[in-house]
Amino acid sequence: MADNRPIGVFDSGLGGLTVVKELLNALPDEDIVYFGDTDRVPYGTKSKETIRKFARQDEAFLLSKNVKLIVAACGTVSSVASDIGNQLPVPYVEVVSHAGKAAAMATKNGKIGVIGTNATINSGEHRRYILEYLPTAEVYCQSCTLFVPLVETGWVDENDPVVYETVKKYLTPLMEAQVDTLILGCTHYPVLSAAIKRVMGEKVTLINAGISTAEAVKKALAENGLLNQSGQKATCEYFVSDITPSFSKIAALLLGKAPQESSVQQVDIEKI
Amino acid sequence: MADNRPIGVFDSGLGGLTVVKELLNALPDEDIVYFGDTDRVPYGTKSKETIRKFARQDEAFLLSKNVKLIVAACGTVSSVASDIGNQLPVPYVEVVSHAGKAAAMATKNGKIGVIGTNATINSGEHRRYILEYLPTAEVYCQSCTLFVPLVETGWVDENDPVVYETVKKYLTPLMEAQVDTLILGCTHYPVLSAAIKRVMGEKVTLINAGISTAEAVKKALAENGLLNQSGQKATCEYFVSDITPSFSKIAALLLGKAPQESSVQQVDIEKI
Repeated sequence: MADNRPIGVFDSGLGGLTVVKELLNALPDEDIVYFGDTDRVPYGTKSKETIRKFARQDEAFLLSKNVKLIVAACGTVSSVASDIGNQLPVPYVEVVSHAGKAAAMATKNGKIGVIGTNATINSGEHRRYILEYLPTAEVYCQSCTLFVPLVETGWVDENDPVVYETVKKYLTPLMEAQVDTLILGCTHYPVLSAAIKRVMGEKVTLINAGISTAEAVKKALAENGLLNQSGQKATCEYFVSDITPSFSKIAALLLGKAPQESSVQQVDIEKI
Repeated sequence: MADNRPIGVFDSGLGGLTVVKELLNALPDEDIVYFGDTDRVPYGTKSKETIRKFARQDEAFLLSKNVKLIVAACGTVSSVASDIGNQLPVPYVEVVSHAGKAAAMATKNGKIGVIGTNATINSGEHRRYILEYLPTAEVYCQSCTLFVPLVETGWVDENDPVVYETVKKYLTPLMEAQVDTLILGCTHYPVLSAAIKRVMGEKVTLINAGISTAEAVKKALAENGLLNQSGQKATCEYFVSDITPSFSKIAALLLGKAPQESSVQQVDIEKI
């Protein structure tokens, strides 16, 4: 069995490109359709109802592109609307449960930190998944509202005083709690890894949800007979709800390379 | 002549409350209807087309509340969509032209700085107005993308290392250019005044667009016979497109006092 339709990936903005990066590594034969809601980013400071409404529109757009599986590459949607994949006609993979499991497996001292947007942290979903796999874990959570704007501005260098002071302000309580494992609960955060390690120490294990999510996608495709076996060169199409002046620069930062200009299109997500 | 209808004020989020604060000072007898597009903030990183579309929806909402004058208390809308008030059935006041004039009058060495969102700075509107009033001025512009997220997070203390380093990073070029007058080209920025003065020096004159805008509103009402002469206690109604968890805290910071809970309502701006 095989299925040559693309994988659909959506995020509140460009952060989900860190998940696309890992999908390209893990599944080089799969076509990808990405939707980034750059017009309405960030989701993490919005109310629960608004986040659910946006996520449903994002899914409807991807389904209109005939995808075979949908990845919610957004920590906020995965946490706040954990049931939103239930009624989809295709398999659905989110970014929270796999990260929770990976952290529970990685910790040695049982102390795990979780960082994410306001909405993600308030949902308590990471904590719930960690405790499911490791009931004795001590979980320390911290919302880091300014990390997404920092990354979307392109300020990620660990030697930049703004980056260092912001990371330090948010993460000092987790460092003092001696967590040995830290879940990056927002797909924007992997590009801040060097700054996070500068504050937390080199020994901390960072859990990048993109990696565990890509593995979960690979498994779901294989189990459902959905792997692409066309043998053709895989393509990536990127759709965004707003093409901002700094789009290429930020996309390159998150994806590890600039997307081809011809592969990027703007859509009006409210009219889907 | 008199007109007892309310004044309408809109902004991309809560920053416009710094303008409401000045309106309450300058025009204590006027009722106010405020709309803050907290669901879609920030506007300043969006494309020109998106900003225009949002501004038209915001105006339509205020007109549905029977306002007698509309204030665009948003530096981004005022700059990027400077013509958007032309077709309104009521007088329209924006926040850019008055600030430009005030800066041109205030400077002694002819060196004026302008800070604002990306979209505001790229529009060049402040520079245009400054040069209209003072053709010999040297104008230094700087977009400060992270200021709005900082303020909406409630981090504004000048002794906070994150606040200080962020302000320093953006404003060092303006300090080196020896500007003696600085336009706060975004309505969020007045609450960062202490931090800005810490970096720029106490002698710099900060131009708060809220003050010059409130004076312009007073003049427009008087000239058009629209002043409220009911003698009744004035009211303020606040509408937002999303009530976020930190709403009260941030609103109090910008307005100088917390708005009464009963005066705040949520609206679906896309369905107006």
